[in-house]
Parts: sequence; C-alpha cells; structure tokens
Amino acid sequence: MKPDYAVYGILDPSRCQGRPLDRLAGEAADGGVTVFQLRNKTGSTREMVRQARAILDVTRPRRIPLLINDRVDVALAAGADGVHVGNDDMAPEDVRRLLGDDAILGLTIHSNEEAQADNVGLADYFGVGGVFATASKNNPDPPIGTDGLDVIRRVLGRHAAGRPVVGIAGITAQNAASVIAAGADGVAVISDLFMRADVASAARKLTSAVRGALGEESS
Amino acid sequence: MKPDYAVYGILDPSRCQGRPLDRLAGEAADGGVTVFQLRNKTGSTREMVRQARAILDVTRPRRIPLLINDRVDVALAAGADGVHVGNDDMAPEDVRRLLGDDAILGLTIHSNEEAQADNVGLADYFGVGGVFATASKNNPDPPIGTDGLDVIRRVLGRHAAGRPVVGIAGITAQNAASVIAAGADGVAVISDLFMRADVASAARKLTSAVRGALGEESS
Repeated sequence: MKPDYAVYGILDPSRCQGRPLDRLAGEAADGGVTVFQLRNKTGSTREMVRQARAILDVTRPRRIPLLINDRVDVALAAGADGVHVGNDDMAPEDVRRLLGDDAILGLTIHSNEEAQADNVGLADYFGVGGVFATASKNNPDPPIGTDGLDVIRRVLGRHAAGRPVVGIAGITAQNAASVIAAGADGVAVISDLFMRADVASAARKLTSAVRGALGEESS
Repeated sequence: MKPDYAVYGILDPSRCQGRPLDRLAGEAADGGVTVFQLRNKTGSTREMVRQARAILDVTRPRRIPLLINDRVDVALAAGADGVHVGNDDMAPEDVRRLLGDDAILGLTIHSNEEAQADNVGLADYFGVGGVFATASKNNPDPPIGTDGLDVIRRVLGRHAAGRPVVGIAGITAQNAASVIAAGADGVAVISDLFMRADVASAARKLTSAVRGALGEESS
C-alpha cells in the first residue's frame, strides 16, 4: 500500500516541549496524522535508535510509516520504514542502495534546479520548501511561498512524475489549505502539531483543513 | 588476516590543522600506522561519506583497515572495514547485526564495570582509556592511567579473552612505551600524529616506540 502523505508530522525532540515523542505520535495519530518523521539533529545515535523504536511501537500497529531524517543507520537499527534526506545528508543513491527498493526515500527540494537533478527519480516523495517562514529550522534561504511550491511541483512532475509533493516549513491548520491549493499532496508540520498543548486536537484541525482542501472527507 | 592494532591513528577533521584527511592518512601509513579511524562528530553525513571514501582510496591498496567512529551508515555507504562505538553510540548488538560478522567492531571501555558487560564479547578489539589527559576530547572523567588500563585489560581478559586492547587518550611517542608495558597491544593517537607538521616523521617515531616496547623490530 502506498503511504498517504497528506498529514506529515515531524517529531523533533527539540520542538516537543520535552514531552515523550512516542506519546505525541500516538496523540497525533489519533488526530489523523498519516506519516511521521523523526528528526534529531543533536542527539546521540543510541538516543535516536531508542526514540525510533519507541515511536515505532506506536506507529507500527496503526500501519503509519515512520521515516528517519538523514540517518540510515538509525532506520536500519530500529527497523523504520525509510529515510528522508536533504542536501547535506546521505546521497539518495547511497540511501537507496543501503535500504533497498521497498524502503521509503524522501528528498528535500528547495529549488527548480534541485527538482531537475538526475537523482530525483530515486525518491518516493518530495518535501518541497521552505514554503513559509519558520521557527523550527535555521533556514538561510527566503521562503518560496505557495507560488514557488507550485513551480517546483510542475518541474518535478516532468522529471519524476507521480511522486507526491509535501509542502514544508511554517505550515499550520490556518494556511494548509493554500499549500494544498498550490498542488501539494500533503503538508509536513512540526510546531502546529507538537508545540501545541493538545496535540490530538491540533492534529484534528490540521487534518480537517488538509482533507477539506484535498476535497476529501476528514476521517 | 587479523588487523594489527599496534599503531592506531584517529583522523578527526577538527584535529588535523585543516589538511586533507586522505593525504594525512597516506603520510601516517608511510610512517607505520597500522589502522585508521575516521572520527567526525560535527560534519554532515554527506561530508563524512566523502571523507571516508577519500581515506579508503589511500588505505585499501595498502590493506590498512579504516573504521568509522559511531556511524554505521557512513561505514556501509563508503564500504569501510568496521565501526568503533562508545557508550552513546549505536549499541554493539545493533552494529554487529547491521554490519555482519566480517566487519570490525571496536568498543570503548572506560571502567571495570564496562569491561564486565554482557556484550563485550561482540567486539573485535577494545579502546581502553582515557589513559592520559588529552586536548582532543572533552572528557569529564579523570584519566585512568597505565595502572587503570592494566586492571581493565585483566578484567577484559576474563570476559573477552584474546581481543586486543588499544590504549587511548593523551598518548605520544614519549609515553607510548609505558602504555604497551601496561599490557596494551597498541595505542590510539590523534594529536601526536595529526597535529604535527610532519605526520610521516611523527608516525615513524610513534611506531618505533610502540614496536620497541612490543619487542618487535620497527618495519
């Protein structure tokens, strides 16, 4: 079954108000999140593997994929469903070779130039952005906006047809519909899920906005 | 063929005065270094894989093993010979499972307690220390000295007989003989190799001290 990238929650231990990631994953899943990524840019490898395993205990019974940001070793050790990589992370060719064809490989795309790279076809989906300004990541580049997302999506459509596009950066329940209207198949969210006091409620609001914009009923 | 751990050079991009790691590996190998470790605690995954591949281009034709500190993903992507892990890194059980029995697995041991852990038998060799004070690593624990190394070596001898013990931290051509005299099979060195202007010459001095203390001719 192909994953549903509509509501993509990024679990970052530095953006969860100190709450356990596995508990937040459960609450977010209750609210409709369809795929998770674990992003830990500062922790030790042992900590990341432990976090991935704890989240998988929650996501696996629900058949929700968990992807690991950058770290193929953590994905392999914990048995996660795949890896998401950006420019400084392991090259997509290496990820695909190490994880095999069944694993999910996500690729961050910031520009039209990146969207035309030879290796975009290795990805299963694309994280496109940063769409809006965000507090979750030090991002030296200006936001591309929904217009920029639309352009990149079209370029990707020519080079890697059929792969879902997920908007990322600064996306909330309030602006998610505009990202979907610009052609995204889903939205990746950190703060408007995991910096909220009531994660399940935040997830329901976000899911409702995304499903509405996709022309689907919120389940 | 079992690796020779006598002269173990740790290549750390933050402790090489900005010189290319592959060039330093070649110079150190010329001076007698028998095994290398790449340790990069701050770089991106893509950078680490690139560094590992560059070093392997130098070490592989010479049949000198290259181990990667902590990062199984980097070792797998670059085709390195193994991984060295400490307390915060991937657990030895996971490393062994992911890399297989033919890969080299090194384990850092700081205390008698660690030397008696159930999983020490998974390792191919041990890095024991910190033997002396060092500028190469923020180490909160006091040095164990050559006496501490000798005690740990005996404990390991009961729990994981036959595996080489490599002393680490603050070891130089001047004090290497005392580490070997305390029962180490080799010494792991950063600064007295890679912070020296003439790495090949520094490696020859270190190798001579180690080989002399081991009762071998320096080759």
